[in-house]
Amino acid sequence: MSFSEDCIFCKIVQGQIPSAKVYEDEKVIAFLDLSQVTKGHTLVIPKRHEENVYELSEDSAKAVFTAVPKVAKALKAAFDPAGINMLNNNGKAAGQTVFHYHVHLLPRYGKGDGFGAVWHDHSSEYTKEDLNQIAKQIAAQLNE
Amino acid sequence: MSFSEDCIFCKIVQGQIPSAKVYEDEKVIAFLDLSQVTKGHTLVIPKRHEENVYELSEDSAKAVFTAVPKVAKALKAAFDPAGINMLNNNGKAAGQTVFHYHVHLLPRYGKGDGFGAVWHDHSSEYTKEDLNQIAKQIAAQLNE
Ligand SMILES: [Zn+2]
Ligand SMILES: [Zn+2]
Repeated sequence: MSFSEDCIFCKIVQGQIPSAKVYEDEKVIAFLDLSQVTKGHTLVIPKRHEENVYELSEDSAKAVFTAVPKVAKALKAAFDPAGINMLNNNGKAAGQTVFHYHVHLLPRYGKGDGFGAVWHDHSSEYTKEDLNQIAKQIAAQLNE
Repeated sequence: MSFSEDCIFCKIVQGQIPSAKVYEDEKVIAFLDLSQVTKGHTLVIPKRHEENVYELSEDSAKAVFTAVPKVAKALKAAFDPAGINMLNNNGKAAGQTVFHYHVHLLPRYGKGDGFGAVWHDHSSEYTKEDLNQIAKQIAAQLNE
C-alpha cells in the first residue's frame, strides 16, 4: 500500500490520526470532513496515496466510485437532504488543499446551506465549429 | 440498454442529437458541455439512463470513473490547465438540470475563469462528539 509520510489522509488511513469514520473496505475509507460545509459532509478516499485524478489508478477509481453511491444513499437515508453534490478538486488552482485524492459528498438542504457553485455560462462565446475543434483537441490526446 | 424517451442525454447517446464528442466506449460517452463554463468543460455519462447517484449502477459507476481519469489527463495534455474540478449534481436543490447522471470535468485557469465553489466552513459549530454521532448515523445506514 503506497503511503506518504507527511500526508494527513494517509495518517487517517493508518489510524495514526482519529477520524469520524462512516465506511471502510479493503481499498477505500470514508470519513467526515471536519469543515462540515453541509451537515453530513463526507470524504471518500482511496487508501493508496494517489495525489490527484491524474495519478488515480484504475483500481482505486473503481473502488472509490463503487463506494460513492453507497455512501450517498446512506446520507440520503440518514438526513433526507434535498440533493447531493459530489466535488473533487485537483491542484491548488482548483481548491485542493490535501494532496491525497478525495471526493467530497455534500448533502444539500437548500440555498445558504454552506455549499454552492459559481457557474458562468459561456455558450454564447463558442460556435458549433469552435466546440468541434476543442473536442478534437481533447480526443487527440485520448487516442495517443 | 436502458433509455428514456424524453432525455436529451439519451438522445446524444443514440446519436439523435449531435454533440462534440471527446470519448466513447461500450458503456460511457463524454462530450463537451455547451455552456463551456471553462474552456474544455466536458461531461462524462453512462450510456444507460440512470437518473442520479442513487440510481447509478455499480457497473456504470466503474465504467464512468475508469473514463474520468483518462479524460482528465487528456484535458491536461490539451490545454495545460492549472487544475481540474469534478462536479456531479444530484437533485434540483443541488443544481441538477438534466436527469441523467453526469459528471462535469472543469479545467481551471485561475480565478474568474467561470467556475468556483461557495464553501462555508462550519467546523466551529461541531464538537468531536457531534461528529462521531453524525458518522454513526451514516454508518448505520450503510450496514443495513
Ligand atoms: Zn496520502
Ligand atoms: Zn437519459
